[in-house]
Amino acid sequence: MKSDIEIALEANMKPIHQIAAQLNLSEEDWEPYGHYKAKLSDQLLNKLLDRKKGKIILTTSINPTPAGEGKSTVTVGLGQALNRLNQRAVIALREPSLGPTMGIKGGAAGGGYSQVVPMQEINLHFTGDIHAITSANNALSAFIDNHIHQGNELNIDPRRISWKRVMDLNDRALREVIVGLGGPVKGVPREDGFNITVASEIMAILCLAKDLTDMKQRLAEIVIGYTYDKKPVQVKQLGVEGALTLLLKDAIKPNLVQTLENTPAIIHGGPFANIAHGCNSVMATNLAAKLGDYVVTEAGFGADLGAEKFLDIKTRAGDLEPDAVVIVATIRALKMHGGMEKGLLESENVEALKDGIGNLKKHMETIHQYGLPFIVAINQFPSDTDREIEFLTQWCEEQGVEVSLTNVFAEGGKGGLDLAEKVMGACEKKTAPMKYIYELEDSIEEKIGKIATNVYGAEGVDFSSKAEKQIRQLKELGFGDLPVCMAKTQYSLSDDPKKLGRPQNFRVTVREIYPSVGAGFLVALTGDVMTMPGLPKQPAALRMDVDDKGIIHGLF
Amino acid sequence: MKSDIEIALEANMKPIHQIAAQLNLSEEDWEPYGHYKAKLSDQLLNKLLDRKKGKIILTTSINPTPAGEGKSTVTVGLGQALNRLNQRAVIALREPSLGPTMGIKGGAAGGGYSQVVPMQEINLHFTGDIHAITSANNALSAFIDNHIHQGNELNIDPRRISWKRVMDLNDRALREVIVGLGGPVKGVPREDGFNITVASEIMAILCLAKDLTDMKQRLAEIVIGYTYDKKPVQVKQLGVEGALTLLLKDAIKPNLVQTLENTPAIIHGGPFANIAHGCNSVMATNLAAKLGDYVVTEAGFGADLGAEKFLDIKTRAGDLEPDAVVIVATIRALKMHGGMEKGLLESENVEALKDGIGNLKKHMETIHQYGLPFIVAINQFPSDTDREIEFLTQWCEEQGVEVSLTNVFAEGGKGGLDLAEKVMGACEKKTAPMKYIYELEDSIEEKIGKIATNVYGAEGVDFSSKAEKQIRQLKELGFGDLPVCMAKTQYSLSDDPKKLGRPQNFRVTVREIYPSVGAGFLVALTGDVMTMPGLPKQPAALRMDVDDKGIIHGLF
Repeated sequence: MKSDIEIALEANMKPIHQIAAQLNLSEEDWEPYGHYKAKLSDQLLNKLLDRKKGKIILTTSINPTPAGEGKSTVTVGLGQALNRLNQRAVIALREPSLGPTMGIKGGAAGGGYSQVVPMQEINLHFTGDIHAITSANNALSAFIDNHIHQGNELNIDPRRISWKRVMDLNDRALREVIVGLGGPVKGVPREDGFNITVASEIMAILCLAKDLTDMKQRLAEIVIGYTYDKKPVQVKQLGVEGALTLLLKDAIKPNLVQTLENTPAIIHGGPFANIAHGCNSVMATNLAAKLGDYVVTEAGFGADLGAEKFLDIKTRAGDLEPDAVVIVATIRALKMHGGMEKGLLESENVEALKDGIGNLKKHMETIHQYGLPFIVAINQFPSDTDREIEFLTQWCEEQGVEVSLTNVFAEGGKGGLDLAEKVMGACEKKTAPMKYIYELEDSIEEKIGKIATNVYGAEGVDFSSKAEKQIRQLKELGFGDLPVCMAKTQYSLSDDPKKLGRPQNFRVTVREIYPSVGAGFLVALTGDVMTMPGLPKQPAALRMDVDDKGIIHGLF
Repeated sequence: MKSDIEIALEANMKPIHQIAAQLNLSEEDWEPYGHYKAKLSDQLLNKLLDRKKGKIILTTSINPTPAGEGKSTVTVGLGQALNRLNQRAVIALREPSLGPTMGIKGGAAGGGYSQVVPMQEINLHFTGDIHAITSANNALSAFIDNHIHQGNELNIDPRRISWKRVMDLNDRALREVIVGLGGPVKGVPREDGFNITVASEIMAILCLAKDLTDMKQRLAEIVIGYTYDKKPVQVKQLGVEGALTLLLKDAIKPNLVQTLENTPAIIHGGPFANIAHGCNSVMATNLAAKLGDYVVTEAGFGADLGAEKFLDIKTRAGDLEPDAVVIVATIRALKMHGGMEKGLLESENVEALKDGIGNLKKHMETIHQYGLPFIVAINQFPSDTDREIEFLTQWCEEQGVEVSLTNVFAEGGKGGLDLAEKVMGACEKKTAPMKYIYELEDSIEEKIGKIATNVYGAEGVDFSSKAEKQIRQLKELGFGDLPVCMAKTQYSLSDDPKKLGRPQNFRVTVREIYPSVGAGFLVALTGDVMTMPGLPKQPAALRMDVDDKGIIHGLF
């Protein structure tokens, strides 16, 4: 089969004005960025206030292998399938970060015949949103350091600055740095560090803001650190929320592209789901729901991460309760959860599949707890055997759960027709509103405890003494009522990436907790999870090239 | 008078497809970026190979005040004036960096009624070129640190890495940093530093490359540092020139916008002229010359910096010899050079003007040495008095030099009609090819010496012992035949920003010299010039805002 980039470059794309026309958009509703990308006006939602919302379908997955479960691929394929069934479907995805693109993945815009295109643009700089966030984030850092250098009127304690710089790359050498060295003309030395941009609070703000005004208010609320007498310092005290908003005025506009089958796709915002809240923007999902009868959207990594945050954080920020959930599983990953070595996953092993299926079961239980109808989508791989497929589908049926074998990677929308029909059916089954896993009034410890026990299956939570102290301070500062964004490994239901399958008898350790007041949540760091990834020994970048004819190689 | 952003927001812009049509471009020659910006195909030059080149007019200036001499404003105004005279003129400018925009200047796209628009886009992220350069530069840093962390096969000495990270901001705290702290999983600790992106070698490469293939070859040649046995390490050894080219594949395409009077403007590449080579891209100037009968382009800061580098570096990389030069001067700045305090420049003082005029005289002599016809353009300010103007014009006439009083800031192209007519005349006067200040075969010391004595008016050059050692090494490595890019303060002809006017009896100190092999020049650092600016106590950012209606404030 052809590589993703080969398929993408052969795509029969429609000019973006045709996609806009498909959505009945008028000229003032969008701006072109090249012939195949557009930015949608941030005023468009206001124009559509009276329009009925379409059904919202959330795609999630089991705990993935490092290569991913093909959740974006299934999301795209399902959207294409719904369109083949003459439904007006719009896809809402996240923007890929350059970090994984250059590092391991080589690209993240679906795969095979279920991709969003132009994939080479989407996977590189796209329309510049992530760069704008990097600029705003680092401008704020420069304003902070300059404020201290110029006399420090606000009495900021350089040892207690929580605002970090960012870079949209995988770069482990930037995790811990010292800045301001070189003497008095080069600023005040202090410890600092870089997160990957997609973990920035500004990314979360952009994704959770209702509009430009809301974004500016949220930016103003950001806590950047503390004074020598331990009072929080906010962006509004520095007076730069206007400048930050100016830097983000275009980034807040959702982006319109298309799939290989010309299904409209809105791609906007890209927080990772392990170290951030893992969902595309509220504005984009809302727009997609207003423009389509169905919106298919995904939340990052497994249901323990992205889906939990979609349901407990994103739906609280917007009015975005899903009508149905799709849980993507691969036979390969379930066998890995059943103890098989990664190099052997292509050989048949029903026993391993059986041993690993507990992982899927836990995620099904989780979605069930939210009171949402769901369907298991098996994302088929060429190495899956009939016996394995039969075992998995039969097991689902025994559980009384709808299951669909999808082959959208190889077949595009055609490979997801069965799934699309079942999803449409599931959307009709929802009778009651969804239930949150925790209430905002719960204490911080209770919120984290409920996530850990109900979503991860842990026996309980241990807080480091640092975290305990931070929780006390957060309560004193009045931040106790915010939802919690868990930072946890994506590979395990637990906080230990090595515990595969459905781990039992484990506790989760929260080592640190800090406020993202602008985003409107608290971040709890568990295990060893790091907010700046590193590169592998052989980065994907080594395979990348543009030849003399301008043809791109090595994105996939 | 209205502020720049007010004037810009009221502009009667034509949709960019109309500007493209004015230039006889067909659909495949450009891509829209919003309704008022476009990227021109990197194949367009090949299509125009047979077309006759227009006249090239280079705008330069005296040593400026911190606010600048209005060189971009005169460039834009002159282009507009040529159009009013029914000449097909195209303007070729640099892209502004976010650093000065957020720091002091608040914007850099001309001023008053001689601006390129949409100025709020051009001054912020524009089409993302500078962000792409930042990404490529820092991806290379990440690849270097990862290489060392993963075993360091190439034997790179972490103490001898010359490749620095960059940020497109003014951020003094990043001038000297230590990266890789935090133990074995966070990389190998080493000293590093950030330059502003516009000083990156990748920016220079993008500006000097003839096409994508040339850019890739130049990227491959970059020297990133040295091995433990002091051999240079190049990007091609790391094998990432393909990935870097991929990151820059759109950035290499020149950008098309328009002026307030709908004159086409190509804006591409933005190296500073004090710490880099200070000219827009070779591809952009070439395209402008192919598309227009006249191209008006500028080189940064005074003729000692931007123009010298345009003439000795850029014309060597492309076939871009100017037909005429415009030297912009303001009465304010000449009075400052004559010893007046900055706060008093609005009051009449013919004596100070007389005392400061030596600065203008030196720049005239410099351009004369290159054998190029030139005109002095007085960029008029409301505070200029009749007596001052009369003195300056008379002085020019006494020198036998053409002079034009321009008022393009307040009047747009109309205020530059006289200048335009004189420039057209000057273009006809050139009879012999220009002469370089130095030959490539000159030794490194000779090249720097010729620039210092002939262009700066110095008595000679002192090399630090570090620079002497570096020069020896550069010769050994075979880099001795490259041109030299001087890094020097813009405020003085000398390397001491406090020496105004026309300093006498001074020597220039070169403290460091390093190779930019990909760009194709050696960089010589003089005085205290720093490759990462700092923010002032009250950054321009404090005035910036986007209000609830989406209206932008504080860019000017």
